[in-house]
Amino acid sequence: MSGTLTFPDHLSTKISPYLPPAKPSNDLPHLTLTFATSLDSALSLAPGTQTHLSGPLSKAMTHYLRSFHSAILVGVSTAVADDPGLNCRIEGVVGNGVERQPIPIILDPKGRWEVTDSSRVINTAKEGKGRAPFVLVASGNWQEDVLAERKKVVERYGGGYIGVDLDDNGRFRWKDILLTLKRELGVESVMVEGGGSVINSLLEDEGSRQLVGGVIVTIAPTWLGKGGVVVSPDRKVGGDDKYTPPRLKEVKWIPMEEDVVLCGRL
Amino acid sequence: MSGTLTFPDHLSTKISPYLPPAKPSNDLPHLTLTFATSLDSALSLAPGTQTHLSGPLSKAMTHYLRSFHSAILVGVSTAVADDPGLNCRIEGVVGNGVERQPIPIILDPKGRWEVTDSSRVINTAKEGKGRAPFVLVASGNWQEDVLAERKKVVERYGGGYIGVDLDDNGRFRWKDILLTLKRELGVESVMVEGGGSVINSLLEDEGSRQLVGGVIVTIAPTWLGKGGVVVSPDRKVGGDDKYTPPRLKEVKWIPMEEDVVLCGRL
Repeated sequence: MSGTLTFPDHLSTKISPYLPPAKPSNDLPHLTLTFATSLDSALSLAPGTQTHLSGPLSKAMTHYLRSFHSAILVGVSTAVADDPGLNCRIEGVVGNGVERQPIPIILDPKGRWEVTDSSRVINTAKEGKGRAPFVLVASGNWQEDVLAERKKVVERYGGGYIGVDLDDNGRFRWKDILLTLKRELGVESVMVEGGGSVINSLLEDEGSRQLVGGVIVTIAPTWLGKGGVVVSPDRKVGGDDKYTPPRLKEVKWIPMEEDVVLCGRL
Repeated sequence: MSGTLTFPDHLSTKISPYLPPAKPSNDLPHLTLTFATSLDSALSLAPGTQTHLSGPLSKAMTHYLRSFHSAILVGVSTAVADDPGLNCRIEGVVGNGVERQPIPIILDPKGRWEVTDSSRVINTAKEGKGRAPFVLVASGNWQEDVLAERKKVVERYGGGYIGVDLDDNGRFRWKDILLTLKRELGVESVMVEGGGSVINSLLEDEGSRQLVGGVIVTIAPTWLGKGGVVVSPDRKVGGDDKYTPPRLKEVKWIPMEEDVVLCGRL
């Protein structure tokens, strides 16, 4: 988990049109949605477990992509299940200062993530190989005693807790998330990496789809079978009749060893 | 639905390793599993509905593949929902005699398919553009009066009903299906095209996976959303602990317009 990775030029050239623009063109950060699934759209075999799906080249691509974003975002379930490092290990970024590293963002409306001094993302920050995370919680929640302890942990290494208002369904609004990241942290681009509910919430309604600047999906040639955590939007959100299946435009398929990488726009 | 289709040479060359061998090498017919799904592995938006997922080139590929098989097989739900023609419309096959056409096979253990003189597959046979279907029903069922009527319809154009024993779960065994097709119809190669339960039953257990000679899956860049008919094997078959996710070998990804075609072996 510690080596420096490289990503070949002939592949990076193909992906470059889907990266965030060098000069941000509007007031919201560019959002790149990226994840890896099985053929049956599963991210993992079951909730709370991590399943290794994609090959080494696809993993190097993930780190390559991270180097173009000022933040990486995951949901609390991913943070709990995977204990991820959330840093960038691509050649050219590694060893060139922590300011080249993306900021890890954890969406944790209910304050479920028990970050401690031995969490991998904290250890990575301690070692100077990544940045400390910022945790987005429901407004007001972060004052609680238990979160105050965790807040100390992440603040010790430069991270923090930020309160964001919830909507009527107890979820963050994607626009609020992006505005908060821009205003509080100066984020110009964010790479949303998972997990299932975070990804599905972006795909479910037209409003949030419009905030997605690019989609990069890796597909591995296996079927995890029924019961996995799947990427598949809920058609019920906004009324059953209103669901229009999201279809990607400007599609490019890039075979990558055993996997394929799909690039497109919503 | 009536034009003659062509499939370009540069693509057919890529697919050729996954086609049935020119000389059959064992006593069971070569089985090619082929279907088209969304990114969330859905064949259609809901049971009983037909959803157009893939582009014109992928559809031409399906007809190209059919030209290499002596039979095409679908489950009864597909026959009922889609009223398919099940013929081959690729250039070189069209107009060169019905004996070049694959035999349509319908898996219909409970005798649910109400084939009539106006079913599309029958009309296609009448017009000399395809062959009449053979329907596999549970042994003994085909003597019933209602099936006797349908039997007359398909026999009028050269098709028939064939009884096959069921296993303890009321399903056909794949080995029995293949043996029957070989023995009764001289089938050397069969292309299994759907629907969901037929495909999943092939992927679910090790025994039936071993009967699959090649897998060709088309993926369209859209998410149909939760509630569709999905390809995703049931892990419960044969005991939850025994499920090993099937992973394809000798993988090749072929971008085809907006879609990608995945070729491999189980």
